[in-house]
Amino acid sequence: MSLDQNWFTEVGENTGIAFSLRINGKLHEERTEYQHIEIYDTTDFGHLMTIDGYIMLTQRDNFLYHEMLAHPVLYTHVNPKDVLIIGGGDCGTLKEALRHDAVKSAVQVEIDERVTRLSERFFPELCEANDDPRARLVFGDGIQWVADSEPESYDVIIIDSTDPIGPAEGLFSEPFYRDCFRALRPGGIIAQQSESPLLHLKLISAMRRAMRKAGFGELLTLNFPQCVYPSGWWSATLAGKGAALRNLRDQDIADKPFPTRYYNLAMHQACMAQPEFFRGGIEP
Amino acid sequence: MSLDQNWFTEVGENTGIAFSLRINGKLHEERTEYQHIEIYDTTDFGHLMTIDGYIMLTQRDNFLYHEMLAHPVLYTHVNPKDVLIIGGGDCGTLKEALRHDAVKSAVQVEIDERVTRLSERFFPELCEANDDPRARLVFGDGIQWVADSEPESYDVIIIDSTDPIGPAEGLFSEPFYRDCFRALRPGGIIAQQSESPLLHLKLISAMRRAMRKAGFGELLTLNFPQCVYPSGWWSATLAGKGAALRNLRDQDIADKPFPTRYYNLAMHQACMAQPEFFRGGIEP
Repeated sequence: MSLDQNWFTEVGENTGIAFSLRINGKLHEERTEYQHIEIYDTTDFGHLMTIDGYIMLTQRDNFLYHEMLAHPVLYTHVNPKDVLIIGGGDCGTLKEALRHDAVKSAVQVEIDERVTRLSERFFPELCEANDDPRARLVFGDGIQWVADSEPESYDVIIIDSTDPIGPAEGLFSEPFYRDCFRALRPGGIIAQQSESPLLHLKLISAMRRAMRKAGFGELLTLNFPQCVYPSGWWSATLAGKGAALRNLRDQDIADKPFPTRYYNLAMHQACMAQPEFFRGGIEP
Repeated sequence: MSLDQNWFTEVGENTGIAFSLRINGKLHEERTEYQHIEIYDTTDFGHLMTIDGYIMLTQRDNFLYHEMLAHPVLYTHVNPKDVLIIGGGDCGTLKEALRHDAVKSAVQVEIDERVTRLSERFFPELCEANDDPRARLVFGDGIQWVADSEPESYDVIIIDSTDPIGPAEGLFSEPFYRDCFRALRPGGIIAQQSESPLLHLKLISAMRRAMRKAGFGELLTLNFPQCVYPSGWWSATLAGKGAALRNLRDQDIADKPFPTRYYNLAMHQACMAQPEFFRGGIEP
């Protein structure tokens, strides 16, 4: 069966997969300095944002990604006071991070201000924390920001980027990880979106090797579902600077004072389990 | 972007999602007494079988589904000697079940013999255990088979069916579960594919209510990724007749004498974790 113009389709030329959402119409479209952004109204997933033809998020299922990028790392770090978010222009990760009372400051460095402005307009529920006095929104180059950061100035760095092609490629490289390592305090942790375990195992392996070469002693790849990303199975990878990544603040999680839809203590423990095929295919 | 004839597309009219795999061509097509079966050669997922336009399995990712339908229930039951599989015509679940030395007999009741014959031809790796002396392949109505079964004649019943529309609808109903309950020995367990937690939570809830009304005292819905099914996130639901569904045979799992690609002890423990939104949305 073929699809008519009532569907938005993301075609994965490298994966042989295409994924489509049925739409009521296109709400907005613009070419920014960096990329081509489109906003659609879908029939079943609320608003949809795409960048250069790739699905970024929908209103229905972004909670999976944002919760799993923010909460595992913030409930693993012993005391995550100062948080840096690289990318994350839709502000969903920032909002989840600011739910933690332990967080005293959260700087978000997004290269394209238009992503944030369009999120404020079409995904307002993700931007509810943008006016939090602990939040600082910077629009600029995240790689440069980390390179220019004072040593040992952050507890957690969350890298919420697009795929490692184009502008985001440098965010998956050893020089960037070296700068992150330097910018983290002892006990600090990176959390980075790390693509699909089914489709991108080589990428995950390469990323982990680069993190290890940059000085990170412990690594942990977390698994979770993400319906609108290729294969529906996604991951985040943690890298610790002298942090024990399987030691959770169990009691704090059990007592968490804010609502979640996916994340809880059992799901945190579950997402750390490693499928059998990771054994041979993932570094180390 | 639109897709040309080099893609097979499954359109979910009820979900607003379409999923496509790129194909080299169609290898086979036939209308059986029950349904329309097509076999494609894909560019990245090996052979693909569809029934009435819906994706059943691919060579690349069926291991997720088959391992997770067979191994959790068989490593939860204390001594699963006699196994009944309803549906499962591709024989992948049967193959995984027969990897267990504890299993002394496995009867598979598939309504459409052509599914199995085509699997033998296009998915031969899934049919490697069909000649095992413990296996019995029956082609007939699974609902009738269970109704006609001797009381307390099985330890485990695995329901590996298509979606609960058309011929498979009765496999999600209380009368069927009553017959399963009767056919199971004390300590017996059902494992049934139970659709997507993201898309079909009402169905999972209804299924669980029907299982409970049929007499099953403990229920447990397991989560796992399944790339080619809607949302990429799938589930199986266990129902126990006096069985403790969270008591695993841990040591046997750790010592399992056969290879798996996804399943292991950590993944079994992980799949039992319940996302936060299950709390309000799932029975009980």
